[in-house]
Amino acid sequence: MPILVMKFGGTSVATPDRIRRAAKRVGVEVAKGYDVIVIVSAMAGETNRLVEHVSEISPLYDAREYDAVVSSGENVTAGLMALTLQEMDVPARSWQGWQVPLRTNSAHGAARIEEIPPENINRKFAEGMRVAVVAGFQGISPEGRITTLGRGGSDTTAVAFAAAFGAERCDIYTDVDGVYTTDPRICDKARKLDRIAFEEMLELASLGAKVLQTRSVELAMRYKVRLRVLSSFEEQSDEAGTLVCDEEDIVESNVVAGVAYSRDEAKMTLISVADRPGIAASIFGPLAEAGVNVDMIVQNISEDGRTDMTFSCPVDQVKRAEAAMEKAKASGSINYHDLVADTGVCKVSVVGIGMRSHAGVAAKMFEALKAENINIKVITTSEIKISVLIDRKYMELAVQALHDAFELDRAA
Amino acid sequence: MPILVMKFGGTSVATPDRIRRAAKRVGVEVAKGYDVIVIVSAMAGETNRLVEHVSEISPLYDAREYDAVVSSGENVTAGLMALTLQEMDVPARSWQGWQVPLRTNSAHGAARIEEIPPENINRKFAEGMRVAVVAGFQGISPEGRITTLGRGGSDTTAVAFAAAFGAERCDIYTDVDGVYTTDPRICDKARKLDRIAFEEMLELASLGAKVLQTRSVELAMRYKVRLRVLSSFEEQSDEAGTLVCDEEDIVESNVVAGVAYSRDEAKMTLISVADRPGIAASIFGPLAEAGVNVDMIVQNISEDGRTDMTFSCPVDQVKRAEAAMEKAKASGSINYHDLVADTGVCKVSVVGIGMRSHAGVAAKMFEALKAENINIKVITTSEIKISVLIDRKYMELAVQALHDAFELDRAA
Repeated sequence: MPILVMKFGGTSVATPDRIRRAAKRVGVEVAKGYDVIVIVSAMAGETNRLVEHVSEISPLYDAREYDAVVSSGENVTAGLMALTLQEMDVPARSWQGWQVPLRTNSAHGAARIEEIPPENINRKFAEGMRVAVVAGFQGISPEGRITTLGRGGSDTTAVAFAAAFGAERCDIYTDVDGVYTTDPRICDKARKLDRIAFEEMLELASLGAKVLQTRSVELAMRYKVRLRVLSSFEEQSDEAGTLVCDEEDIVESNVVAGVAYSRDEAKMTLISVADRPGIAASIFGPLAEAGVNVDMIVQNISEDGRTDMTFSCPVDQVKRAEAAMEKAKASGSINYHDLVADTGVCKVSVVGIGMRSHAGVAAKMFEALKAENINIKVITTSEIKISVLIDRKYMELAVQALHDAFELDRAA
Repeated sequence: MPILVMKFGGTSVATPDRIRRAAKRVGVEVAKGYDVIVIVSAMAGETNRLVEHVSEISPLYDAREYDAVVSSGENVTAGLMALTLQEMDVPARSWQGWQVPLRTNSAHGAARIEEIPPENINRKFAEGMRVAVVAGFQGISPEGRITTLGRGGSDTTAVAFAAAFGAERCDIYTDVDGVYTTDPRICDKARKLDRIAFEEMLELASLGAKVLQTRSVELAMRYKVRLRVLSSFEEQSDEAGTLVCDEEDIVESNVVAGVAYSRDEAKMTLISVADRPGIAASIFGPLAEAGVNVDMIVQNISEDGRTDMTFSCPVDQVKRAEAAMEKAKASGSINYHDLVADTGVCKVSVVGIGMRSHAGVAAKMFEALKAENINIKVITTSEIKISVLIDRKYMELAVQALHDAFELDRAA
């Protein structure tokens, strides 16, 4: 029978009632003829409760024990979901990560999935089990210890299972009903997309749209797993939510798929840096070591052997960046006149695979911002994305203006 | 290094603070030179919370899923305890049942321990680990599913580990400070015993003293595991609590070790039963099938081929017993004139291995009850125990009178 993977996040399984609702959705797919692998998160609040216990006991905890403790929340949900399905006469059983086994490396707290042998679960499917309920977010290390996958681990678990079992689709049930052209909270014309390409989703995810974790989208793209995002709080048809899929599966699309933003950015400028080969490495090496997530980088034209170097990073990393630069200056590895931090900026981006074949997207973007008198401070581009740094106070205005300019309220 | 097993119950690990206190006790033993195996229960209230979730979802649950869910509470405590010990610079790690592995049969919810191979944990001890924190109450079935051991499972886990590792002693930390000559709540002269023989403890446990589960005492007796019961809420010396041990390890002891009681008993009498070979089987077979825990049995002298048959059972099983007897009568397998239930009785017992060699214990017991004008309704005896059924209203009076008569307030 064809296999479907369905993943339910913490709010979708927060209470026995919600687990029942989710189980009904699973039952609908089983009735259609699918063998289903359900990936569950911990009940909302559970993981935080466990993390608090750990932090109270040991601020600098042993990550192996942390993993053993926090993974228990998913185990509880998996058992409860299996029981709920059995109550509905759907043959189901729960699987903890080590039982599958979902093999990972030993990077506790942020482990990478290495292998999911499908034999154990497939044997049960062959015996008549219709649903395998798997505790998400966890696996087993080569040493036989429990590992967790880190942020977004349950989404990643779901996609990895879909890849390992050749699932027809991976449905991610969450508290939003799909991927939007932009954040509906700041633009009321935002429209739900029926389909979006992996590459676009990846840019949107990493740009701050919180629907799917970047890592799970990367994995889906690599293994061509069709990923659907949909709400667990609404009655769903086969066409509900947003399908994240290969470019070729999208017949018609707008040039721009969506507008993303990231609110709390800072623009840092090193004034009058000695311009010599290797200077970029001398700057960004120490920043990386200090844990600063540098995003955009712009180098001015050089004059008299000196230049200005501008970069952006999250606003809460400014102090760390300043300290790293001062240390590098003190050690003599770089030399600059001043370091100016502008902590009042944000990033707004337009994303779309259509840009590859359509010229003029950048011009239209800049025109729309100019019409609103919004000054652009930094620009960077990639093949399918244009990002600008602007004053934070213009953020919502810019998003709305770009949404209008690219007519994102209308489907292609 | 010599090995010590220490078990902490739910109230002893109810909060991170209490876990810290328990960990300090473990640290004391490590400092003395022991390698320690710590068995932990779930934090108080956790197991009930999980059981409630299961009951809410599925009144007739799949015991395998029940086990997967409820075992998670112990896993959390094990990880937190290991972290706490690490914070105190004691090399420790947690072990879930399947990691040890603690192998059981497949009787989910009430599994029997079959094997605890000591190799994995011993290898870690050899590498310098000083404490193995093991999640109690759980194991792994031949099918690779998680099992739980049922009521008193953590005590049983502790004793089984002590046997498997040849531990010097198994210390059970609980919320009482030892085993008493009787319940201090109803007899203020009750005295804590320094030592008690396995056989005596077994009789006391099964007679209603709630300190240790019968099953763990049986196991300790079979494998000669020295078992100590002590409070986790007091500073402890090496001589604290009560040592449950082999008869030979007790130099001096009273003839009677303690007085036990069981409050909610019922006395059932089948009047005028046809007395023929096999009649007892015809009565007690159907009662066992109906799940009635028959305790005492007395058969009157037969007259004219008919007799009266009296038995006792817990008062909340009277309805069940009546239904079973009526059904058996209707089917013709037994014949009786009437079934009379006295639901106002209790059982009081004196227990002591000294009875084996001392005559007159029964006489002294009956004398003491007679002096208080307490009428005895049923008597049964075993090698080390005499039990009587009396009116419930005399229970406390009887316990106090017997405690006085055998001078239990004074050590041997």
